[in-house]
Amino acid sequence: MKDVYVIGCGMTKFGEIWKSSFRDLFVEAGLKAIKNAGIDHLDSMYVGTMTSGLFVGQEHVGALMADYLGVAPIPAVRVESACCSGGMAVRIGFLDIASGNSDIVLAGGVEKMNDGADVTFALSTAADQEYECYHGVTFPGLYAMIARAHMKKYGTTRDQLAQVAVKNHYNGSMNPNAQFPRKITLEQVKNAVLVADPLTVLDSSPVSDGGACVILASEKIAKKFPKQMVKIIGSGAATDSLALDQRKDITALNAVKVSAKKAFKMAGLKPKDIDLAEVHDCFTIAELCIMEELGFCEKGKSGKFVEDGNTALDGKIPVNTSGGLKSKGHPVGATGIAQVVEIYEQLTGKAGQRQVKNAKIGLAQNMGGSGASSVVHILKKLND
Amino acid sequence: MKDVYVIGCGMTKFGEIWKSSFRDLFVEAGLKAIKNAGIDHLDSMYVGTMTSGLFVGQEHVGALMADYLGVAPIPAVRVESACCSGGMAVRIGFLDIASGNSDIVLAGGVEKMNDGADVTFALSTAADQEYECYHGVTFPGLYAMIARAHMKKYGTTRDQLAQVAVKNHYNGSMNPNAQFPRKITLEQVKNAVLVADPLTVLDSSPVSDGGACVILASEKIAKKFPKQMVKIIGSGAATDSLALDQRKDITALNAVKVSAKKAFKMAGLKPKDIDLAEVHDCFTIAELCIMEELGFCEKGKSGKFVEDGNTALDGKIPVNTSGGLKSKGHPVGATGIAQVVEIYEQLTGKAGQRQVKNAKIGLAQNMGGSGASSVVHILKKLND
Repeated sequence: MKDVYVIGCGMTKFGEIWKSSFRDLFVEAGLKAIKNAGIDHLDSMYVGTMTSGLFVGQEHVGALMADYLGVAPIPAVRVESACCSGGMAVRIGFLDIASGNSDIVLAGGVEKMNDGADVTFALSTAADQEYECYHGVTFPGLYAMIARAHMKKYGTTRDQLAQVAVKNHYNGSMNPNAQFPRKITLEQVKNAVLVADPLTVLDSSPVSDGGACVILASEKIAKKFPKQMVKIIGSGAATDSLALDQRKDITALNAVKVSAKKAFKMAGLKPKDIDLAEVHDCFTIAELCIMEELGFCEKGKSGKFVEDGNTALDGKIPVNTSGGLKSKGHPVGATGIAQVVEIYEQLTGKAGQRQVKNAKIGLAQNMGGSGASSVVHILKKLND
Repeated sequence: MKDVYVIGCGMTKFGEIWKSSFRDLFVEAGLKAIKNAGIDHLDSMYVGTMTSGLFVGQEHVGALMADYLGVAPIPAVRVESACCSGGMAVRIGFLDIASGNSDIVLAGGVEKMNDGADVTFALSTAADQEYECYHGVTFPGLYAMIARAHMKKYGTTRDQLAQVAVKNHYNGSMNPNAQFPRKITLEQVKNAVLVADPLTVLDSSPVSDGGACVILASEKIAKKFPKQMVKIIGSGAATDSLALDQRKDITALNAVKVSAKKAFKMAGLKPKDIDLAEVHDCFTIAELCIMEELGFCEKGKSGKFVEDGNTALDGKIPVNTSGGLKSKGHPVGATGIAQVVEIYEQLTGKAGQRQVKNAKIGLAQNMGGSGASSVVHILKKLND
């Protein structure tokens, strides 16, 4: 496999972006990424979008975005894996360059969720329609069941869940692209409107519009832009049953475990080698379960791990320095790309107030549904 | 790039398949392909589906199908490029193996269109929502405009258009998987219900349910199954504007031209080297325009070319020996895969009554929208 580098990135602000349409959001992010990388052409493009058919009545997203970005007739295709559509777009872009087929690939993601669609129904299409949604359960309910099971099995507390949101909002308060860039308190999280017991609205990521893009390149191209070389040294993806009831233990996210194992194997690294991580905190409980599967802490100990400040900006392994899905926002298809944007900015020293010191190796973990898909990328800064 | 082979295939019958659900269709095709190839595992999977969110309320199709096919936790992701989602799934599977990341990949496609959804609206999401659909035009109308322009510019006749349908139904009458396996006459096509002048219902591909899968493999694996080695020697993809009004000449399909050029270049071949082809005849006019862009005949001469029998089963270059989308059916996401299934069966001498003699090199061309996406694959039989 040929080596693959990240040479630039760009994203829109996440939020309720009424002034921009679905295509506008992608084009804004794409142009920023192209400018940031300093390139003058693309060889191909992959666009992560979860359910633009239901959100805005538009499929055929690859060609549409290539046209509006002004890069047609390059090959452009949409990639969908529910909430990890963006991460999967990065992975396929990675494979495209690794194969030698392309030298410069744009991997992007976009979602326009605030355009009048029934968001809860649209998102529920990431769960098993026949065995979950049909019976009335949607994602807050599914994650609430995971939270209850984790609390019962491992003694995880309500405060520990809330601490995830408090930490991520603290980080997000320093991110100009965040949808909710404000600090919150444990009490605010616990006393917020209940969505699905024990999860309140402040345990949940918001409904967002947004776009994000990264530029991937072969070694030949990356060497022409020697500012700071960031290499993708690991990529792993995996799947699990869509329906939660088909898993032996709903607190275990096997797809996360397997995807991480593959990425670590490719990188030749262990969890302790990671300097910072962006993980898929669609709900606070998700961040806890994911940290365990990534090997950042022991199984069942994630609540205490967060409570003790290990994942804070100045902790042992800063997690979701961008604010995560929770504070930064979660425009589904763009989320996995925005994670790589954050890791790239951290590794190149462009993360402003939320900069992690001496960050050399970062990990991005993006998840779909209640954990039926997961993709992990490990990025490394090669020079200073 | 590493070499990539096709080592097996499987598909469901196309049609109104009331006894099978969306997931059933994919699993049936997948199991047939796995059995046909004689393999015992997969490394990864790509699933082409156009708009399952709108058709059956289900996204997150990669993980769902991996689960129901019994192959989780392998990486599995959905690929969408409107009606060429299937062809794009083949292409990404090809890149995955070409990179050295995987040795055995299932590239499949599936669509369940007869489950109560508003099919015309769902399909219109492949056109430009803001500049086409909003104003009321849908695909029959778009292709009717292309047909009228082709007739005016090149003198293409009504009978020549109809001849495409007659030929494809003749071929399809020998395909047990075809939705409409019956011969039709020129008069029947011309006198059928008018959909969008000049196109009648018999100029149009039907609404179909169906699934299709092919198994791709690295050389290392393919050599273990030495029955008949079929290699993918060319892969090309390209895009164009979604909206027809943004093209200089609506009878020209630039994405088809560019994708074919790339595939021919990779294969080191010219159009005259192709023994048979499956092309995207969603409407009769599409087959005519595509043949011109593929270089099988001169620009503007496709009507006469078909009329003279050049694309018949015993002609110079047999086109759509399977019956094409027209007679075999067009379950959108499965279509591009079913094209490769036909080419593979022809090259391995398994096409029954519709077998093309001495077929060694076949081409599959799959298109999205009114030509905004196109993907071309060239397959070659290596031994006898």
